[in-house]
Amino acid sequence: MASKKKFHDPTQSSEDGNDWSNEPVDERHEDLLVHTNRPFNAEPSNKALQQMITPAKQHYRRTHAPVPLVDPATYRLSVSIEGQQPKLYSLNDLRSLRQLADGVPVTMMCTGNRRGEFNPDGQTAGLPWKNGSISTAKWGGGYLSDLLREIGITSAEQAEEDGYRFVTFWGLEEYHVSIPLAKALSRHGDVLLATSMNGGPIPRDHGYPLRAIVPGFVGARSVKWLDKVVVMKNEVKGMHQTGIAYKQIAPSIKSIVDVLKVHSKDDIAKIPPIDIIPVTSAVTAPEPGAVVRPGQTVAVAGYAYSGGGRAVIRVDVSADGGRTFQAATLSRACASQTPRSYKAWAWVQWRTEVTVPADAKAGDTLTFVCKAVDDQYNQQPHTSAPIWNVRGILNTSWGRTTASVGAARL
Amino acid sequence: MASKKKFHDPTQSSEDGNDWSNEPVDERHEDLLVHTNRPFNAEPSNKALQQMITPAKQHYRRTHAPVPLVDPATYRLSVSIEGQQPKLYSLNDLRSLRQLADGVPVTMMCTGNRRGEFNPDGQTAGLPWKNGSISTAKWGGGYLSDLLREIGITSAEQAEEDGYRFVTFWGLEEYHVSIPLAKALSRHGDVLLATSMNGGPIPRDHGYPLRAIVPGFVGARSVKWLDKVVVMKNEVKGMHQTGIAYKQIAPSIKSIVDVLKVHSKDDIAKIPPIDIIPVTSAVTAPEPGAVVRPGQTVAVAGYAYSGGGRAVIRVDVSADGGRTFQAATLSRACASQTPRSYKAWAWVQWRTEVTVPADAKAGDTLTFVCKAVDDQYNQQPHTSAPIWNVRGILNTSWGRTTASVGAARL
Repeated sequence: MASKKKFHDPTQSSEDGNDWSNEPVDERHEDLLVHTNRPFNAEPSNKALQQMITPAKQHYRRTHAPVPLVDPATYRLSVSIEGQQPKLYSLNDLRSLRQLADGVPVTMMCTGNRRGEFNPDGQTAGLPWKNGSISTAKWGGGYLSDLLREIGITSAEQAEEDGYRFVTFWGLEEYHVSIPLAKALSRHGDVLLATSMNGGPIPRDHGYPLRAIVPGFVGARSVKWLDKVVVMKNEVKGMHQTGIAYKQIAPSIKSIVDVLKVHSKDDIAKIPPIDIIPVTSAVTAPEPGAVVRPGQTVAVAGYAYSGGGRAVIRVDVSADGGRTFQAATLSRACASQTPRSYKAWAWVQWRTEVTVPADAKAGDTLTFVCKAVDDQYNQQPHTSAPIWNVRGILNTSWGRTTASVGAARL
Repeated sequence: MASKKKFHDPTQSSEDGNDWSNEPVDERHEDLLVHTNRPFNAEPSNKALQQMITPAKQHYRRTHAPVPLVDPATYRLSVSIEGQQPKLYSLNDLRSLRQLADGVPVTMMCTGNRRGEFNPDGQTAGLPWKNGSISTAKWGGGYLSDLLREIGITSAEQAEEDGYRFVTFWGLEEYHVSIPLAKALSRHGDVLLATSMNGGPIPRDHGYPLRAIVPGFVGARSVKWLDKVVVMKNEVKGMHQTGIAYKQIAPSIKSIVDVLKVHSKDDIAKIPPIDIIPVTSAVTAPEPGAVVRPGQTVAVAGYAYSGGGRAVIRVDVSADGGRTFQAATLSRACASQTPRSYKAWAWVQWRTEVTVPADAKAGDTLTFVCKAVDDQYNQQPHTSAPIWNVRGILNTSWGRTTASVGAARL
């Protein structure tokens, strides 16, 4: 079994007690907007977000600790039913599972995406992500459901009757969360033990050598540097599952201190974790503050996504802040991710053209907004203020950007 | 098999060619707000909507034709796999199926609920429902999945591999729609062949003697006066399934004529039908236009609902049009319909108290709004204008009502 400590050199420890000497700095694109270096949290540019498949170097990173350095020869995945002896699997063992060879396009999004837009209405606790704590990659590997069958979980019904309802993933850096067992076992769930990203080995930043990929679920459930998989009766306890980290609290509660006045720890544990992202969208072109001219045709573009395998069926775009809309043209990541497939794991990229009114005046502001509708007709809230919450989670309000009208060209 | 014609007396036909002589007028509460008499379409008052279980007499009605008059002794349900010989079931046969005896609370909602609020932004095609094309009843009967097993559909996986993906319901009045076979077969789907409503026989208006109950789906799928159940490869063709009736079109398309300029009939068939209602809510107290006084404590109440078995976890209420919110107290229809049960088939009733500001001035308007969040963190759009659509479908914007401030009491 891989040791968590083996590759750490204590002489290299930085002052915070962690060893930062093995960070895979070469894997990181220079255009990433870096929120923190230790641990490394960074997001792609708007330009990079316009690609259907995000290159690994530009894919967003959300990490809580130094990136583990793993020896693939000695690495073992531990798989067990709670309280029973684990089975250990080498990377070679895992490659003998039925493989999803080509990889499936999956959008991963952090619940904190677009958190920064909340802050003018009150400071939130968390990284001030812009449009980019979301990216899409093609993930390949074996099916978790096959591995669970090997340890004796043959049917969701039987497991449920035996009281098992969750699968918990532990990363080598001790991060741990649960997903419903039904999702893991569903033949349409596509939960993978991924060994490839965009056709190559998974880069260290993204979970080398093995990452759980939970399509349609928030990025936080796709655990990197996977160490242990445990079938459990209850969801695992911990900040990212039962704690406050991924719980959306009412807008009336203005601080973390106030949360604890209103909600006991048990109360918070009972608030559902965020698994499935509600329908959302963002404008990635034009850039905020771009200068446009009266009569100019402006390319407006962005992404739209809905969790749970729901497909986006329409994106409405407005150049007047939401008074009038036009429907954008959508592109999908692959032919199988259609409406009502319930396996639309990836975002859509959308695009349209807007003509700046000929009588727009220099100095005017043009507000572009977008809103998406998914195949279950979910809609986005209009602005972020009414969904403001102290953890700054799930800002799924209309995508919005502004441009300035410059002088007309003569 | 029950005849559609048998009980019709042609001498009683009214001028529209239909026989309206057998309408069950005694079943209808005098407080219902009637939109049309022939066919009978009516909704409960705000006061009636404040009951957790809506009495059958007050439950909303959505009908397209005269109410069939059925002889229970000769009634037979036809059940088949497409193209194969049907099996016929008498009411006694159906009572021998495993029964959900007590009944399960299920909220049924028409996609047109709150359509009337769209009309100030442009006339929509359909009945101008207020808050009340929604109601909740306890439905009891046998499981459709058991009956489907009897005709040879033993597993969803096998049926899917054989190409079967839908179950179609026909009512005796020829109304017909489909639901996904996976929903019908799911052990958690609770699709019923209902013979009881609120503990008694189903009243004729609500589908006597047999109604398909599809919990978590829009009311349009819970077919009344059930005549035929057919397992099919494709969804059934027809206005209420593949046609325009339950399709939400972009807000940029302003008339039914324009729909046909933008969308071919095939295009419209490809737009997903509305099966699962997005999270929604409404204010049922105070009544619109109520007079409140400075310093008065006002009881504010309403309902909130989300389709697909999702439970409402929070309702935020505002007395200032949505600038500030307070969390309401929720009541659930039964103990098992909890968050993350994925079987929360009924609405929640919510309630809170708001104090009118002491310095409110006579003649001021107070705008109460409510917005609900479900256990997958779906949110409501703020206002109806940006989701306006020509069929006036799915007005799931914040519930909203206004009160007038009267003179302060001395």
